[in-house]
Amino acid sequence: MKVFIAGIDGYLGWSLAQYLTARGHTVSGADLLLRRRWVEEVGSISALPIASDEERLQAFRECYGRDLDFRVGDLCDYAFVRDFLAEFQPDGIVHVGQMPSAPYSMLDQSHSVWTQQNNITSNLNLLWAMQEVCPQAHLVKLGTMGEYGTPNVDIPEGFFEIEYRGRKETLPFPRQAGSFYHLSKVHDSHNTLFACKIWGLRATDVMQGVVFGTQTGEPVSDSRLWTRLDFDQCFGTAINRFCCQAVIGHPITLYGAGGQKRGFLPLRDSMQCLAIALENPPAPGEYRVFNQFEECYTVAELAEVVQSAGSEYGLDVQIHHYENPRIEREEHYYNPDRQRLIELGYQPNHDVKSEVRHLIGDLLPYKDRILAYQHILIPDIRWDGTRRRSEIIGAMAETPS
Amino acid sequence: MKVFIAGIDGYLGWSLAQYLTARGHTVSGADLLLRRRWVEEVGSISALPIASDEERLQAFRECYGRDLDFRVGDLCDYAFVRDFLAEFQPDGIVHVGQMPSAPYSMLDQSHSVWTQQNNITSNLNLLWAMQEVCPQAHLVKLGTMGEYGTPNVDIPEGFFEIEYRGRKETLPFPRQAGSFYHLSKVHDSHNTLFACKIWGLRATDVMQGVVFGTQTGEPVSDSRLWTRLDFDQCFGTAINRFCCQAVIGHPITLYGAGGQKRGFLPLRDSMQCLAIALENPPAPGEYRVFNQFEECYTVAELAEVVQSAGSEYGLDVQIHHYENPRIEREEHYYNPDRQRLIELGYQPNHDVKSEVRHLIGDLLPYKDRILAYQHILIPDIRWDGTRRRSEIIGAMAETPS
Repeated sequence: MKVFIAGIDGYLGWSLAQYLTARGHTVSGADLLLRRRWVEEVGSISALPIASDEERLQAFRECYGRDLDFRVGDLCDYAFVRDFLAEFQPDGIVHVGQMPSAPYSMLDQSHSVWTQQNNITSNLNLLWAMQEVCPQAHLVKLGTMGEYGTPNVDIPEGFFEIEYRGRKETLPFPRQAGSFYHLSKVHDSHNTLFACKIWGLRATDVMQGVVFGTQTGEPVSDSRLWTRLDFDQCFGTAINRFCCQAVIGHPITLYGAGGQKRGFLPLRDSMQCLAIALENPPAPGEYRVFNQFEECYTVAELAEVVQSAGSEYGLDVQIHHYENPRIEREEHYYNPDRQRLIELGYQPNHDVKSEVRHLIGDLLPYKDRILAYQHILIPDIRWDGTRRRSEIIGAMAETPS
Repeated sequence: MKVFIAGIDGYLGWSLAQYLTARGHTVSGADLLLRRRWVEEVGSISALPIASDEERLQAFRECYGRDLDFRVGDLCDYAFVRDFLAEFQPDGIVHVGQMPSAPYSMLDQSHSVWTQQNNITSNLNLLWAMQEVCPQAHLVKLGTMGEYGTPNVDIPEGFFEIEYRGRKETLPFPRQAGSFYHLSKVHDSHNTLFACKIWGLRATDVMQGVVFGTQTGEPVSDSRLWTRLDFDQCFGTAINRFCCQAVIGHPITLYGAGGQKRGFLPLRDSMQCLAIALENPPAPGEYRVFNQFEECYTVAELAEVVQSAGSEYGLDVQIHHYENPRIEREEHYYNPDRQRLIELGYQPNHDVKSEVRHLIGDLLPYKDRILAYQHILIPDIRWDGTRRRSEIIGAMAETPS
């Protein structure tokens, strides 16, 4: 099938382009290369060196024997999006082209506004373009498990049937997101549901857990084809950050008690799930929600996994509790469903430790690269607004030796 | 108390400025005068002639014996908002400064994106500015009953307690809005709840029904102080539009079956409720939701009220069913709560017919003014996207004699 990837240069997008191509699909995609700029803005780099977009395309050609239609362009530019989709006529569209960081969205007024504008607009543009030029396509929209927050009841996949004052109804499950970034995804979910209803579009809204790791499920021999791996407080996700800390002998930065429970999944599970969603589209007019994660763990449990895997490499990994910069529950009930993808064939990896071991092995050759940026490992973007962005960015800009 | 009105030039904002001043409050406000431009863009005018902002200020001075600090400026300009609030130090902030039309937001891609960007940004700017310069102020944010949609269960005021799989929890009531405009208000509600939680702000999120009428509850002798009254398909609300149609002998435009049930309230009830909300602020950190309407009626019932009131003026009012341009249920369960404002002293007007009679009386002298724009009375902005904006605006621009 033909798949358009919005955000094809990112951590997930670049991995997915290769994974889907290896499975025989025809891929195209767009990206404004903003992720590279954001990470630079917050004073960091990818732990694994990544190639430029031109080098990536050259390596793709050599490896897969075909060109990749990868255009540098803005998903907020409607004419660009519509014309590309009109020409390519995709069967599936994967939207992984948004600003994905909670702390970045909490930096200050301008970052919060920009995050919501950018994320909402890019998604609305895809919906309008689908309606206009490819209404049969299937949108796989990347959301986040963070849309739900941490309610004191089970979390279904998108909708739940309730009885209220003696009447029954199936309703969208309430969203209680914990950052302006997570809220942008909530807004997208509402917009996408509505577009399916009025225009008969089909969409899968993926409530994805925290992704980690370097393996995509397809062997990558050429280092120009590697995907990025971030470790700063904004763009580094929990396990990736912990492994980078382990590699340079920096204590693992647990936020508060560490009892925060979340769904996690290795990168290759994410690739597997997104492909399953694409290859099993919903009916026209259907908006469905998949909760996408391998299993739930507390952050403290995962820190211990990293500690244990690190010791196999002779690393002495310490775990420190830092003042939590976020406002969130540190001990809570958490029991989300994740049956729908499994019913379609998803086989959860279930071996987090081996994934972490592999990740640490990939990172060890780049220890010095991470060491040069270790000043960015301590979280200082606070949800309560007590620290201004100028101070934060100022501190970040003192930058490395 | 000191009250800042965001959107002080609009239908509600201009009425509220006078209503609160008459009650002894000190009012200031900002507006970019966009409502005037939008109505012009869709090819219409206010049925009642309205004064320019300068004339309004002059009349205000003469009538109330004091100056009104009314600044023309953009709520999406953060520095403008923050500096104004820092200087004025309001006790209350009423946000009635958003793009309020469902059909306008459904015109095309650019109008939907602009609506969401404008509405979300103005509200985020107020929240950030409060956090920065007046954290004790109370935000009264205008939302809409349309955020809830028409679920098959009772609609509580913002939150409900449910039991799900044997566990209990109080959750935000799910929102199922029916246009990109209504969705923008849903997004605001989520953002506002979050800001209260992390910054300890206080807010009242007003889920308001459909407002109609010309009376504010305060006598307005000087015509330069009149608030606007729209009747086009975008900015004219149901009863206001019906009365304008009745006055010129145009059939009342019922959309579809007319069994759509909504909460309605006269303009002066809205003024009463907003003042009650302001004068009874929530505690710091509290986010509360008020459902604000006088009573629920079907659109067909209200058309009959207009027909009956019209006959008292000798008007022969016809009611026609037009193809519904929206995608919505035309027969449905609808039973929202509205106890919280009543507990605080709101006395619902309960005399819709007298309000309608008064409105028709106000409109009759301006029959020719409405007649000149009667071509805009038939709804042609369709939710299913089958008509493009160019055609719609094109048709509107053929304009009046």
